[in-house]
Amino acid sequence: MIELISEEAEFLKGRVRRTPVEFSPGLSDLLGVPVWLKLESLQLTGSFKIRGALFAISRLREDVITCSAGNHGKAVAYASKGAIICVPRSVDRSKFDAMVRLGADVRVSAFDGYDETQDWALEMAARENKYFLSPFDDDAVMAANGGTVAKEVLEDAPDARMFVLPVGGGGLSAGFAVWAKHLLPASRIIGCQHVLSPALKLSLDAGHAITRLPAVETMAAGVEGGIGARTFPVLQPLVDQVALVSEAEIWEGVRWMVAHHQYLIEPTAAVTIAACISGKIRCAEPAVVVISGRNVSAENAKKIL
Amino acid sequence: MIELISEEAEFLKGRVRRTPVEFSPGLSDLLGVPVWLKLESLQLTGSFKIRGALFAISRLREDVITCSAGNHGKAVAYASKGAIICVPRSVDRSKFDAMVRLGADVRVSAFDGYDETQDWALEMAARENKYFLSPFDDDAVMAANGGTVAKEVLEDAPDARMFVLPVGGGGLSAGFAVWAKHLLPASRIIGCQHVLSPALKLSLDAGHAITRLPAVETMAAGVEGGIGARTFPVLQPLVDQVALVSEAEIWEGVRWMVAHHQYLIEPTAAVTIAACISGKIRCAEPAVVVISGRNVSAENAKKIL
Repeated sequence: MIELISEEAEFLKGRVRRTPVEFSPGLSDLLGVPVWLKLESLQLTGSFKIRGALFAISRLREDVITCSAGNHGKAVAYASKGAIICVPRSVDRSKFDAMVRLGADVRVSAFDGYDETQDWALEMAARENKYFLSPFDDDAVMAANGGTVAKEVLEDAPDARMFVLPVGGGGLSAGFAVWAKHLLPASRIIGCQHVLSPALKLSLDAGHAITRLPAVETMAAGVEGGIGARTFPVLQPLVDQVALVSEAEIWEGVRWMVAHHQYLIEPTAAVTIAACISGKIRCAEPAVVVISGRNVSAENAKKIL
Repeated sequence: MIELISEEAEFLKGRVRRTPVEFSPGLSDLLGVPVWLKLESLQLTGSFKIRGALFAISRLREDVITCSAGNHGKAVAYASKGAIICVPRSVDRSKFDAMVRLGADVRVSAFDGYDETQDWALEMAARENKYFLSPFDDDAVMAANGGTVAKEVLEDAPDARMFVLPVGGGGLSAGFAVWAKHLLPASRIIGCQHVLSPALKLSLDAGHAITRLPAVETMAAGVEGGIGARTFPVLQPLVDQVALVSEAEIWEGVRWMVAHHQYLIEPTAAVTIAACISGKIRCAEPAVVVISGRNVSAENAKKIL
């Protein structure tokens, strides 16, 4: 995957933003080591997902069907004109509106969770004979969404040896871990998940990918549901710790970011901040915390603040 | 000032962020021309003020006293260790906290408005025999805070011919207008102000700078108070229109940015968005709207959302 990451990083130059790596005095004080934030929340379309979407779509000649809790769908809508995007009925309003504005054919499932919605999307793809693009379970998507982010982080924060990542389907974390451990074998990867949907933790305990989990009520829809059948085997030997955070801790993470860095981020992205400020992570070395996205509706932001 | 702007742009390379110019589908639909946002809200320290502060401080050998509604103070605190920063008692909590965290000696005046607070700061500077750094009424500050922003905007949105700017003391707008009209003499400059504190409009009507205005109750403290005695003569022949917006329209502008671009910006910065979405601006040509900052407390953000 290393070669694929290099190729995609080259492809993405000038097509996506080189997002800032910003020093965090607040987290550095809390954790006792220098801590930086990788602000993929400032990325085009509001999340890292645009990386994989642009690359994957550039390679496909046919129309795609995809499934998304929101950010991947918004990214695909930006990258492609004819895509059908299936979303859970719990989709964040800001993400739904953005997909529609970008001209996508957005189809809302009858389910709150990602996994059931994906079943529905897969059936639709089979019926309509279209290509199903997974938001995470695909080598090119892992390489773009995780690998190219890691490449920038290691260039911009060369002293960092701990990487705190959000884990949903596992695309970002798997691609990131491959690049980081290739260049810095002694570095540590910490995956952060919702305590009610801890697919990575359950998968590590079971020794195989838990690809389905029941839907849970959360504003952090991007870290809800099972882990990928292809991402987990990549991640399994590379992850050093899993930190689980509650809904309340995630909301506190959103508030902390506004108070300390003046960025509004989405609840999904706040799992990493939540893990840091709730004392679930110990860092012995300089760390980078990945902030994955900013797409949250004004209504949900108001509830949280 | 053109040479000074070029010199400062060179000085600032690598010291500040090259903030994105982002296309706005929503404003383009509303105004009927292509519209981009210059996102100085994503700048280091949360506003364009870091540009002037870094350059001005780099030239001074003595400790400074300055006065600020918040953003300039935060920028000076970031740029300098020993600065004394005078702020009105109405200062936004997020700005105050940030200055204190950056180690500044922050002194809160007994006044709600900027102008009275500056009188107090000037007296202090005279008494303690220190240099008073104006947040806007200084050539180097105008060149950095406005000129270098304009240089980036003209490079990144070469088709734009209308520039929508916030006007407080006039530093950003004066420096911006000098560069823009030098390179594009037929371009148009639109200044946006709070309807209760319309110093630019009053000054244009009077034919001289109105440097003092009574304090008004607003969350947009950065556009409250008089215009600079040095910025106004620069701006006077270059500004084409003044748009005045109400507090309610400003709050609506903050909400619009979250809904359409998913960025939380500060009320001061929302004067330009407010002018666009309230129909106070007509654009016949492609436009760039400058978003000056993001420093708003979680408490005020919640009230607005």
